[in-house]
Amino acid sequence: MLNPEVIHTTAVAQSLKDYLENSPNLIPIVLCDTNTVNLCFPVLQNSQLKTIVIEDGEVNKNLNTVELILGKLIDLKANRQTVLVNLGGGVLTDIGGFAASIYLRGIPFIHIPTTLLGMVDASIGGKTGIDFRSLKNQIGTFTHPETTLISSEFLSTLAPEHIKSAWAEIIKTAVISDEALFNAILDNTSLDHIIHLCSAAKQKIVEQDFNDKGIRQLLNFGHTIGHAYESMCLANDNEILHGFAVAKGMILELKIAKHLDVLMEAEMLKVIALIVSKTQVDEISDTEFANLLKFVHADKKNTSEKVTFSLPIAVGKGKQGIQISMEELKNWKNQGFI
Amino acid sequence: MLNPEVIHTTAVAQSLKDYLENSPNLIPIVLCDTNTVNLCFPVLQNSQLKTIVIEDGEVNKNLNTVELILGKLIDLKANRQTVLVNLGGGVLTDIGGFAASIYLRGIPFIHIPTTLLGMVDASIGGKTGIDFRSLKNQIGTFTHPETTLISSEFLSTLAPEHIKSAWAEIIKTAVISDEALFNAILDNTSLDHIIHLCSAAKQKIVEQDFNDKGIRQLLNFGHTIGHAYESMCLANDNEILHGFAVAKGMILELKIAKHLDVLMEAEMLKVIALIVSKTQVDEISDTEFANLLKFVHADKKNTSEKVTFSLPIAVGKGKQGIQISMEELKNWKNQGFI
Repeated sequence: MLNPEVIHTTAVAQSLKDYLENSPNLIPIVLCDTNTVNLCFPVLQNSQLKTIVIEDGEVNKNLNTVELILGKLIDLKANRQTVLVNLGGGVLTDIGGFAASIYLRGIPFIHIPTTLLGMVDASIGGKTGIDFRSLKNQIGTFTHPETTLISSEFLSTLAPEHIKSAWAEIIKTAVISDEALFNAILDNTSLDHIIHLCSAAKQKIVEQDFNDKGIRQLLNFGHTIGHAYESMCLANDNEILHGFAVAKGMILELKIAKHLDVLMEAEMLKVIALIVSKTQVDEISDTEFANLLKFVHADKKNTSEKVTFSLPIAVGKGKQGIQISMEELKNWKNQGFI
Repeated sequence: MLNPEVIHTTAVAQSLKDYLENSPNLIPIVLCDTNTVNLCFPVLQNSQLKTIVIEDGEVNKNLNTVELILGKLIDLKANRQTVLVNLGGGVLTDIGGFAASIYLRGIPFIHIPTTLLGMVDASIGGKTGIDFRSLKNQIGTFTHPETTLISSEFLSTLAPEHIKSAWAEIIKTAVISDEALFNAILDNTSLDHIIHLCSAAKQKIVEQDFNDKGIRQLLNFGHTIGHAYESMCLANDNEILHGFAVAKGMILELKIAKHLDVLMEAEMLKVIALIVSKTQVDEISDTEFANLLKFVHADKKNTSEKVTFSLPIAVGKGKQGIQISMEELKNWKNQGFI
């Protein structure tokens, strides 16, 4: 499926206005959360727009919130001429995209990501979803937005922790698929340029494999361990930003790639150094690792005793579908290989 | 989007076995309702198959039932290798298709319709959905099953009311798109042959317009009024079989077509006679009509003050996108034109 247009803009209010003027039959409703309605909605400079406001945070990324959105859409008489404008971070664009994709069997929606992670990752690629029974993104659809408007105007209001966390996904995309992006990060290129390169790199992968059955799985680099780490934290009521879990995951998975001899040591060290400098995470400790394995096992992508990894084989190049048994992982750790 | 294969069989147990043998990586879970688990599941001759059982009836075609199915899928460790086998009538295939289409962003599913309506209509065409806030099919997706297995073996257990109700959709498809099917009905051709012709006629339309933005809307003939009638009954806790609502809708819409001079009176009378003889419905009464209009207005296909109809212009030929104002409808009724 062809990707929708991603518009990079420095004046999002005007870009949204242009978009709506070019789609005269579409009537917008803006989905905000309790943060973005105050911090980001005013940037759109159109207080006349109808809004739906949901609670912010991963903890609300559930069916109750979807039901609330669907009910409000009915109250606002939303129909197939409605376009839902999802104004927020990854949680909001995931949930808003999902609600739009099932309302009346799908109404148009656009994303305006307001976080760095949203700009480089969550708003690109048509994955929508919610958590269900504490399982991340257990429910959802593959549905592209009509368009994504990306503007770094919103980043000034973002906490530094969220910027650092987003770097993990940027580095991931670079390492697994785009050496030029990796070098641009090393060269301290402007953030606007990085967002541009990274969203384009992700689009390129998604366009080849929309339904995530082949090359798109490369984007799981860092996530086999990272997701498990995130679930472990969640289970311990110790929430961690997604990017930090992915950063920790990538460090361990880079060591796995090196131990498997698919990645050279020098490359591994270069990537780990960049991850640590940009995200400032620590490695996963030995005691954490022991606890982690059962969460690795529970992940929906791991179908039996084997765990599936996507690993870099050089900077800018990856390989998906690498299977390793739980036993091997345990032994390698005990022997200090990873 | 290409239609999936529809397999007409006289031995559904063997056909399902063949299908599963040809898809060795897929593990089936059978979705039944409290009726089909007793009446139809034994026909599959494989009591080893895992099942999920939901309450039957339109009144349970809601988000609660979807949540129940999703929870059971998790309990049964369903993953992307699971195929959900939807064994039931249109309500069950709609809801099962919807649950499968959002679980893990979509797992494969197949339909085994057990009602005549399911065989000729609901299981064909990839519309999935549930009701929400008393609005029919307000929530759903467009997702094709992997395949549909059609066998009239199940019809022997079906109440006569359900057979009569299904005739409405068969006549609808015939009137709007297939004169040969209409003549086959008049000629009292075997039901197996009618099922074959009708499912093929529907497939032909769906293949040209999967997302229901053009010619597929022809299939809405009888449904602008019929859906509203059904919603009205639902709101009054007075359930009506879908086909009977459509039959009543068709009769009124045929009169509209005649009043608009798009359909000749003789054709109108011929079709109404067939509808009445096959479904034995009464026309919508004047008091019902007065109450009906607000449900017409709430329908998702009606975008403003105008109501959109698909009407026959001759037997076997239809026209979609005919807009009529609420005011006109009211006046025509008052003046006895419809």
